[in-house]
Amino acid sequence: MRQDIFLAGSGLTRFGEWWEKSLRDLMSEAATAALRSSGMSPLEIDLVVVANMLAETANDQAGLGALASSLFPHRPPALRVEAACGSGSLALHTACAFLESGRAKTVLVLGAEKMTDAPANAVAEALMGAADGELDAPSGITFPGIFGLIGQRYMHEYDLTREQLSVVSAVHHRNAMDNPFAHFRQELSPEAVSASPLVSDPLRLFDCSPVSDGAAACILSTARRSPLRIAASQVASDTLSITERPTIVSFPATREAMSRALLEAGIERSDIRAVETHDCFSIAAVINVEDLGFAREGEGIRLYEEAYAGHPSLFVNMSGGLKACGHPVAATGLKQLIDAGKHLERASIRYGLAHNFGGAGAACGIHILENIEA
Amino acid sequence: MRQDIFLAGSGLTRFGEWWEKSLRDLMSEAATAALRSSGMSPLEIDLVVVANMLAETANDQAGLGALASSLFPHRPPALRVEAACGSGSLALHTACAFLESGRAKTVLVLGAEKMTDAPANAVAEALMGAADGELDAPSGITFPGIFGLIGQRYMHEYDLTREQLSVVSAVHHRNAMDNPFAHFRQELSPEAVSASPLVSDPLRLFDCSPVSDGAAACILSTARRSPLRIAASQVASDTLSITERPTIVSFPATREAMSRALLEAGIERSDIRAVETHDCFSIAAVINVEDLGFAREGEGIRLYEEAYAGHPSLFVNMSGGLKACGHPVAATGLKQLIDAGKHLERASIRYGLAHNFGGAGAACGIHILENIEA
Repeated sequence: MRQDIFLAGSGLTRFGEWWEKSLRDLMSEAATAALRSSGMSPLEIDLVVVANMLAETANDQAGLGALASSLFPHRPPALRVEAACGSGSLALHTACAFLESGRAKTVLVLGAEKMTDAPANAVAEALMGAADGELDAPSGITFPGIFGLIGQRYMHEYDLTREQLSVVSAVHHRNAMDNPFAHFRQELSPEAVSASPLVSDPLRLFDCSPVSDGAAACILSTARRSPLRIAASQVASDTLSITERPTIVSFPATREAMSRALLEAGIERSDIRAVETHDCFSIAAVINVEDLGFAREGEGIRLYEEAYAGHPSLFVNMSGGLKACGHPVAATGLKQLIDAGKHLERASIRYGLAHNFGGAGAACGIHILENIEA
Repeated sequence: MRQDIFLAGSGLTRFGEWWEKSLRDLMSEAATAALRSSGMSPLEIDLVVVANMLAETANDQAGLGALASSLFPHRPPALRVEAACGSGSLALHTACAFLESGRAKTVLVLGAEKMTDAPANAVAEALMGAADGELDAPSGITFPGIFGLIGQRYMHEYDLTREQLSVVSAVHHRNAMDNPFAHFRQELSPEAVSASPLVSDPLRLFDCSPVSDGAAACILSTARRSPLRIAASQVASDTLSITERPTIVSFPATREAMSRALLEAGIERSDIRAVETHDCFSIAAVINVEDLGFAREGEGIRLYEEAYAGHPSLFVNMSGGLKACGHPVAATGLKQLIDAGKHLERASIRYGLAHNFGGAGAACGIHILENIEA
C-alpha cells in the first residue's frame, strides 16, 4: 500500500430475509453501526463508495451513491461500484485508491442488497447478469447451473466424491453458530447436505449460498484508529463466460490477484492464517483454496475435512462463509473483510485475507488485513 | 490536481439507434477509436473504468467491468461506476483517483448504453431509478414529469416564456449540424420546438433529449501525450428526490462541484470560455448556466438567446448538447469531456468545462480541461 489505510470501523446488519426493511433502511443500519464502532462523527466522512449489484432489477433504484450520501447531514460525494458479486471488494479497492490519491482521508464503503423484494425467478435472472448475456444466457443456464458444470468437471478431474463435498457446507454451518449476523445458525450434517434436493447435479440445495438481504459497512481511514491495517488491495479480471476459459476448475483471476496481493503486502502466503473466501457454492470453496495457493490442485477439500475433524491447518470462513452467513451479493465482499478482521483480533493472529469474486471468477478482489497488535 | 493527468486519446460511436449493434460492439468501437487516437498499445491500459446505468434493466447484463476488460488481450483490472446519468463524470473522477494514487498510469474510461434494446416504457421506468424509489416513484411521475415541474416553477419565478425556452433546443440543433457523432444533425426552429407535442407541460417533445445508443471512451494518462490536461475533477451529491430540496429551480450539487473545481484548477470562472453542460431537458440547460455562475438567477436564457442571435458571450454546448447529440446516459459525461476538448483545440481556447449530472442533479461531476498549447 502506498499509504497506510486502517479499518477504522465496521457495521453489519444480520443477513436474512428482511421483509419489513427497505434497501435504505439496511444501508442506514450498517452505516450507523460502522460510525458507532469507529467513534467518529458522520461529518468526518469525505466520500461514500456504495457496492451494489441488484438495486435496478430488484428495487427499481439506481443512483445509490446519492441515496447513501443523503444519510449524512453534509451529503458527501458518493458513487456506486458494481462488479456483480465482487462489488464489495471492488468498492473497497476503489476506496483505497481515493485514500491513496489524497482526495479523501476517511471513506465509508457501504455494500447492500435487498434481494427479497423481487420474486425468486427474477432474482435468478438478474444474477445471470454476472454471466455473459451473449455467450451464456441464451443457453437458459442459471448460476447454480454454471457451478454445477464446474462441479461435474472438477469431480471428473480429481475424483472428489459427493460425500466429501458435503463436508464444506457442514463446516460453514458449524462456524456460523456463534455468529449473530449469520443468516443460518443451525448445525447441518454432511448427510443432510447429501440428502438435500438436487439443484444442478452434483450441487444440492445445501451446496448453494442463499438469497439474502443485508448490508455491511467499512470505514477506511488514513489515520491509525484501529489495529487493523489493510496490507494489500488487489483486483483482477477474467472473461464473463466460462466458455472462453482454458479450464473451468480454476479461476485465474484469483491466482493473479493473490500473487499481486502477496507482493504488495510483502509477506509469504504462509504468513496468512485466516481466510474468508467466496463460497457462493461449495465447489467454489474447494477451488478457491487451491487458487489461493493454500492447497494443491485437487486437494482443496482436505482443508475442510481437517476443519470438520477439529484440527484445521488454516482458519477458513470462520464466520460461516456465504453458505451460512447468507449472500446479499454486493455486501459480501465487505462482510468478508469485517469477519477476517474480527477473527484476527479474537485469535490474535497477524495476517488474514478476504477473497471475493463476481460471476464465475470474472472479477476478483483480494484484501490482506494486518493486525498490527498481534 | 495532485498529479498531471492528460486526455491522451478519445473515441466515440455516433449516438443514435443502433439496432444492429450490441452493447459490447459499441464499447469495442469506442475503445478502439480511443486507442487509435492515442497511438498507444492496448497493453498500456492498466485499468478500465466503465460507466453505465441501464445494462441490467435494458440488456440483462451486469459485470461490465469484466466485459470491457475482455476486449483486451491482457484483461486489465476493471470496474463499473454508476451514478445514473452522471455515471460518465463519476467514472472519470474515479479514474483520476486511481491515477493520482499511483496504482495506474493509463486508464481507459468507457461509457456505454444500449437503450433501444428495451421498449420505451421499460426505459422510462428504468430511468426513474435515478429518482427516489420511495419518495418520487410511487406518485407515478416520470423524468420528463420531474423536469416539467421544475419548468413550471422556473417560469413562475422568473417569467421565462415558452417562446424563449424554445431557443435552447434550436441552438443545440444548429450546433450539432457539423458534429458527425450527433444523433440529430438537422436544424430545428424555435417555432418547431414550441409546436412539438406536449410531453409534460411546459416541456414539449423537442425540449427533451432523446433515448440513444452510444459509447464514448477517454484514455487518461499521467504522461503528457496531448495538450489537454485535466485541471480539476470534482463531484458532489444531493438528495435523489426533489421533494427534499429547498428549491427546485437550482441544483446545489452543481454549485458545490463548481466552486471546488475552480479552487482545484486555481482559475477564475471568467477564464472558462467553453462549456458542455447537461441539457437533459431545455429547462436544465437554462438552470445549469446559472448554477455554474455564468448567468444570474433567472437570466440563463440570455446565453442561448445571444448564441441564437450569433454573438455568444460563452461557447455553450458547441457539440449540440444532449438534445441534438443524443443521450446514451452513462456515455454522456465522457462525450462532454471529449467535445469540450475538441472545441478547445479547434478554437485555441485555454480552459473548458464539462458539467454532467445524474437524476435531477443528485450526483454532479465537473471537469475543467486545460489546453496547455493555447
